[in-house]
Amino acid sequence: MNKIGPSLMCADLAHLADDISQLDEAGVDFYHLDVMDGQFVSNFTIGPDLIKTIRSLTNKPLDAHLMIQNPERYIDLFADCGVDMLSIHAEATDNIQGTLAKIKQLGMKAGLALNPATPLTVLDYVYDVVDYVVIMTVNPGFSGQKFIPATYQKIAQLHERIQKQERTIEIEVDGNIGKATIPTCKENGATLYICGTSSIFHNRGTRQENVAQTRKWLS
Amino acid sequence: MNKIGPSLMCADLAHLADDISQLDEAGVDFYHLDVMDGQFVSNFTIGPDLIKTIRSLTNKPLDAHLMIQNPERYIDLFADCGVDMLSIHAEATDNIQGTLAKIKQLGMKAGLALNPATPLTVLDYVYDVVDYVVIMTVNPGFSGQKFIPATYQKIAQLHERIQKQERTIEIEVDGNIGKATIPTCKENGATLYICGTSSIFHNRGTRQENVAQTRKWLS
Amino acid sequence: MNKIGPSLMCADLAHLADDISQLDEAGVDFYHLDVMDGQFVSNFTIGPDLIKTIRSLTNKPLDAHLMIQNPERYIDLFADCGVDMLSIHAEATDNIQGTLAKIKQLGMKAGLALNPATPLTVLDYVYDVVDYVVIMTVNPGFSGQKFIPATYQKIAQLHERIQKQERTIEIEVDGNIGKATIPTCKENGATLYICGTSSIFHNRGTRQENVAQTRKWLS
Amino acid sequence: MNKIGPSLMCADLAHLADDISQLDEAGVDFYHLDVMDGQFVSNFTIGPDLIKTIRSLTNKPLDAHLMIQNPERYIDLFADCGVDMLSIHAEATDNIQGTLAKIKQLGMKAGLALNPATPLTVLDYVYDVVDYVVIMTVNPGFSGQKFIPATYQKIAQLHERIQKQERTIEIEVDGNIGKATIPTCKENGATLYICGTSSIFHNRGTRQENVAQTRKWLS
Amino acid sequence: MNKIGPSLMCADLAHLADDISQLDEAGVDFYHLDVMDGQFVSNFTIGPDLIKTIRSLTNKPLDAHLMIQNPERYIDLFADCGVDMLSIHAEATDNIQGTLAKIKQLGMKAGLALNPATPLTVLDYVYDVVDYVVIMTVNPGFSGQKFIPATYQKIAQLHERIQKQERTIEIEVDGNIGKATIPTCKENGATLYICGTSSIFHNRGTRQENVAQTRKWLS
Amino acid sequence: MNKIGPSLMCADLAHLADDISQLDEAGVDFYHLDVMDGQFVSNFTIGPDLIKTIRSLTNKPLDAHLMIQNPERYIDLFADCGVDMLSIHAEATDNIQGTLAKIKQLGMKAGLALNPATPLTVLDYVYDVVDYVVIMTVNPGFSGQKFIPATYQKIAQLHERIQKQERTIEIEVDGNIGKATIPTCKENGATLYICGTSSIFHNRGTRQENVAQTRKWLS
Repeated sequence: MNKIGPSLMCADLAHLADDISQLDEAGVDFYHLDVMDGQFVSNFTIGPDLIKTIRSLTNKPLDAHLMIQNPERYIDLFADCGVDMLSIHAEATDNIQGTLAKIKQLGMKAGLALNPATPLTVLDYVYDVVDYVVIMTVNPGFSGQKFIPATYQKIAQLHERIQKQERTIEIEVDGNIGKATIPTCKENGATLYICGTSSIFHNRGTRQENVAQTRKWLS
Repeated sequence: MNKIGPSLMCADLAHLADDISQLDEAGVDFYHLDVMDGQFVSNFTIGPDLIKTIRSLTNKPLDAHLMIQNPERYIDLFADCGVDMLSIHAEATDNIQGTLAKIKQLGMKAGLALNPATPLTVLDYVYDVVDYVVIMTVNPGFSGQKFIPATYQKIAQLHERIQKQERTIEIEVDGNIGKATIPTCKENGATLYICGTSSIFHNRGTRQENVAQTRKWLS
Repeated sequence: MNKIGPSLMCADLAHLADDISQLDEAGVDFYHLDVMDGQFVSNFTIGPDLIKTIRSLTNKPLDAHLMIQNPERYIDLFADCGVDMLSIHAEATDNIQGTLAKIKQLGMKAGLALNPATPLTVLDYVYDVVDYVVIMTVNPGFSGQKFIPATYQKIAQLHERIQKQERTIEIEVDGNIGKATIPTCKENGATLYICGTSSIFHNRGTRQENVAQTRKWLS
Repeated sequence: MNKIGPSLMCADLAHLADDISQLDEAGVDFYHLDVMDGQFVSNFTIGPDLIKTIRSLTNKPLDAHLMIQNPERYIDLFADCGVDMLSIHAEATDNIQGTLAKIKQLGMKAGLALNPATPLTVLDYVYDVVDYVVIMTVNPGFSGQKFIPATYQKIAQLHERIQKQERTIEIEVDGNIGKATIPTCKENGATLYICGTSSIFHNRGTRQENVAQTRKWLS
Repeated sequence: MNKIGPSLMCADLAHLADDISQLDEAGVDFYHLDVMDGQFVSNFTIGPDLIKTIRSLTNKPLDAHLMIQNPERYIDLFADCGVDMLSIHAEATDNIQGTLAKIKQLGMKAGLALNPATPLTVLDYVYDVVDYVVIMTVNPGFSGQKFIPATYQKIAQLHERIQKQERTIEIEVDGNIGKATIPTCKENGATLYICGTSSIFHNRGTRQENVAQTRKWLS
Repeated sequence: MNKIGPSLMCADLAHLADDISQLDEAGVDFYHLDVMDGQFVSNFTIGPDLIKTIRSLTNKPLDAHLMIQNPERYIDLFADCGVDMLSIHAEATDNIQGTLAKIKQLGMKAGLALNPATPLTVLDYVYDVVDYVVIMTVNPGFSGQKFIPATYQKIAQLHERIQKQERTIEIEVDGNIGKATIPTCKENGATLYICGTSSIFHNRGTRQENVAQTRKWLS
C-alpha cells in the first residue's frame, strides 16, 4: 500500500536510461519529476523534453510536481508528456479547483502540494477533485535540506480530515525522506514517499540495496 | 574561426554521457545549454543539476543561454555550474549593463541575446561589456521552428556596427541553423552557430557525419 | 427576501436598452455586472462606459463583480459609475479589510467574492465590513459552466458562521444558477441569485416567462 | 484610400444595433474596438462577447486594438470573434515578431501599436510581418484626451521608413482625430483614422452628417 | 513584561540623534522601523542606510517590519544592518516557513505580521519558528489611521492558540495604539506595543511625558 | 550654469537639519533625493515623510529621483511633498510621455532617467515634455560604485541631439561624480551634477571645503 517514488532530480543524469533501468528492476513504484521555474522556487530543473524521454524508458507511473507560478497555463503541456500524476501548488494559483478539475479531465491523477506553512484549510472545498496531497516536508527548491518537524503533525491532521471525508486520498511526503523520518510519516498516515539522497539515491548502496533498505524502513 | 555548438536540448537525454562523448569526438567546438522559465518563454528545459553533470562529461566550453525573466538573480547560480559563456536576454532585464559586467567579473564570457524584433539600439552603450551577441533567428521556446528571414539583415547590420566599434565581438546565431541558412549567416558575419535538429541532431546521419556535414556548409 | 439579479454579460448587447427595459418590467431585483481583466480570469467583458450606460437605463441596484487583480486600484472608478453594490475577490488582494472598508465609505454595499476552493477562514475578521459574500459556484471567467457540488456545503457553512456572528450578511451565488441548483442553494442559505443562461437568459422563454419561472424555483 | 473607422467605445452602447446600422449606412470603412485590461492601461472596456455581437451586426471589417499586457495569450480568443484586423502593443510583449506572425497565420491583418514615446526602432525587424502600425496620438486608456503634437513628426518619419522598405504598410492614427488634426496626419502619411468624440461621435451632428464631415476633412 | 517601541517613522527625522537620545532616556524598550516598497503598501519610508544610522545611535533592540513583497530576497540586507527583530508579512511570500527559519538562523527574532483580514490559520505550522506575531490593527502603509475593532478579538484568539501550543510567542500590536486601545489589547494578550502619533509621538507632551503616560496606560 | 546637488542618501541622517544647514551655507544648488522600491533596484532608501522633513529645512530646489517600478502611480504622492524636480526611469513604465506630461502639469520639472544600457532612442518623441535627462553613470541602487566609461559618449551624443532639437534640456549625471569624472562630463555637455561620496560627502573635507573643491573641478 505504501509506495516509493525516486525523485529523478537526484538520478544519474549522464546515464538516465541505465539508472531508470536499474530503478525499474529494483522495483520502485513510480517516478517523481520536479519542474521548477526560478520564480515559485529559486531553481530550475527539468522540462517536457526530459519527461518525454523518461516516459519512453519506463512503464511505471510518472508523477510530475509543478513548482511553478500559475500552473494552470501548463497543464496541457505536461499532459502531453504522458505523465500519470500531476501536482500543482496551492500557493501558486488563485484557481485551485479549476486546475485540479482540469488535470482529472485529462485523465491524470490530480495532486495538491502544500508548502510547509500552508494551512490545511486550502483543502476544505476540493476534497472531491484531489487524488493526492503533497506535504512538503522541506522548503521546495533544492535537495539536501532538513526535514521540518512541524510537518509531522500536519500529516496526521490531514490524515484525520481525509478520513472524516470518507475518501481515498493519498498523502505524499516530499523532502528528506529516509531512515529517520519514514517511521513517523508512516505512523501519521503518509502513503507515497518521494525518495532522494536520504534513501534511494544515498551513495552508500546500489540502487537495488537502497530500494530494499527503504522498503524495510517502511515495513 | 567559425564555431559550431550543439544545443543539448536536442541531444539524447537518455544517454547523455554517450552522446556528449560522440559529439566531443566529432569535434564540436562548444555546447549550448538552453535554460527556460515558463515565463520569458512558454517552456521549461534544464537547470543547474544537469549543467553540472554535463560539466563533468566534457572539457569543451559550455555556453548557457538564459531564456529567463530577470536573469540578474541567477548569475551566481550558473557561474557555480562551471559555465564558460553566459548569455542573458535584452528584453528580460532593466539592468543590462550591470548584469553583463557581473558575468565578466565572474570570469565568464558575457553574451546578450536579442529576440527577433529587438532593435540593435539596445547594444549602443554595452559594446565594451559584451563578448558575443546572440541573434535569435527563430522565436525562443521550442525547437523545430522556421528561420525568420528578417534576421539575416540584422546579422549584417550588427556585424557592421561591431566593425565600427573596432571590437572583437562574436555573433552567435540560434534557431533553425542548417544547410539552408548557414551560408547567408556566414556571409553576413555570424561566427558561432547553435546546431539543433536542422544540422548536428538531424536523424539522417551519425553525430560524426552530421558534424562533418555542418563543417562543410560552413566552409 | 430572496432576490434575483440577471448577469448582463448574458444580455442582448445589441439592444441593451430594450433588454433592460424588459427585465425591469419582468421585475428583476438588481443587475449583476462582471468586470474581467484577462489576468485574474482569462477573459474580458465590460468596463465603466458600459456600466454608466446601464446606470442611465434603470433605477434598480447595480451589483458590479470585480474579477480583477488588485481591485483596490479601481474602487473609485466603479463608484463613479453609480454602482450600488461592489464585490472584490479575496484571492486578488492582500488588503481585503481596507478595500471593503473603502467600498462602504463610498456609500456602496461591500461584497467579498470567493473562488470555489477559497476557505471561509478569509472571512474571520471582516464580518463587520462585509454586506454580502459571493460564493462562486463555478470557476469565474466564462458563462456556461457546470455547478461545482462542493460549494453547496460551503454555502451552508457560511450561513452558519454568519448566524453565529449575529449579522445580516447576504449570501450571493454565482454560476449555473437554475432549476437544478436553486433549491439546494436556497435551503443552504443563499439569498442573492445571479441569473444567466440557466435561468433568466435561457433561450426557451421570454424574459418575462423566465423571470417568473425563476421566481417559482425560488419559492 | 484613406479610411475611417469609428471607435465603438464611443458608440451608443444602449442601442448598439441601431448605432452600427446608422454607421454602416453612413458609409464608415471599418470598426475599431478597444480592449483594455486595467493593467496595460488604467481602464476596462469590452471583451469577446460584445465583439461577437458586433460581428453579427455588420459585414464591415473589425479592427480590435489590444491594450493589454502579454497579448500573445489572447490571440486565439480574439481570432475566434471574427475580427479582421488585430493590433498589439509593442510595449506589452517581449515577443513582438512571434505574436504578429501568429496573427497573420490566423488570417487576420497584424497591427503593431506604439505608445506616444515608443521609438520607431521597435519596427526595425518586423516590417515583413506588420500590415499596419497604430500611432497612438494620445496616451491610451480614456477617450477625450488632447492630441500629442510630437506624434505628427512620428507619423512622417514612419511613413518615410515604410517607403524605404518598399512595402505597403498602413499607418493608423488613434486619439483626438478630428478637424484640427486630420490634415497634418494625412499630409504626413496616415491612412487609417480612428474616429471618436472629435469626429464621428461628436454630439453636434447625426452619424450621417459627421461621417460626411469627416470625409471632407480627409479629402 | 509589556514593552513599548516607538515607530521611528513618526520621529523627528531632522534631528534623529536627538530624538533617539531622548527616547532612550525616556526608557523605551525597543525601536520599530517600517520598511515599505510601494508595492505591498502604497508608500515608501526608510531603508538600510537609515537603519544603520539608527543602529549607531542606540543600544536598544531594533525591530524592523518589512512591508514589502517577497521579503525572502532581503533578509540578508536587513540582518547586515544590525537589526535584532525582523518581521515579514504572511501575505507577501509563498515561503513563510523558510523565511522565518532563515531570520532565526541569522540570529534575529523572527516575526510574522498579519494584515487585518488575514486568518490565524497561516500560523498553524510555524509556531516553532515564530518569536512574535505582529497583529496589524490598522491597514499598513500610512500613519494616523483608525484602529480596526475586529482585531481585538483576533489578539485574544491568537493569545489562546499560543497558550495551547505552550510556547512563549509575543503578540505585537501595530496601528493607532494609545489611550483608547491599549487597555483592551493588553487584556487580550498583547505584549509588544508599537507607539506612534497616538502615544509617544503625540504632540501634546515631551517624549519623556508621553513615554511615562503610555506606561501608565499599560499598567 | 553648471549646478551641483548633493545626494542626501549620503548625508548624515542622524543630524539631517545640521547637515542641510551646512550644505545650504556651503552654497549647493539643489538637493537630490533617491527613492527606491526594492523592485526596480535592489535597495530601499527614503520616502515622502523624510522628503517633507527636508522640504521644511531648506528653500533650495528638491530633485527626487524615482527608482521605482511604474512611477505613474506615485506622481501625486511626491508632488505633495513639495518637490521641484521629479525624474522617472524610462525602463520602469510603458507610459513615458503621459507620466512626464503629468509631472509638468503639476508644476514640477520633469526628468527622464536612463540606465547605463538604455539607448537614447527612448527620447525620440518626448523632447517637448522633458526638462532634464538623468544619465546614470553607474548602475542604480547603491552608492560607492565605479563610473561606467561608455556613458561619457552617451552624454556627448545626448548633448548633440538636444542641440539639434534646439531646446534647453539639461543633462544630469548621477553616479561616482568627482575629480576624475567631472571634467569629461562637463566637456561632453552635462550641467547638473549629483554629488555623493566622491565629492561633497567625501570624508576628507568639511562640507564647505568639499563644495568649494567640487566647484573648482567644474570651473
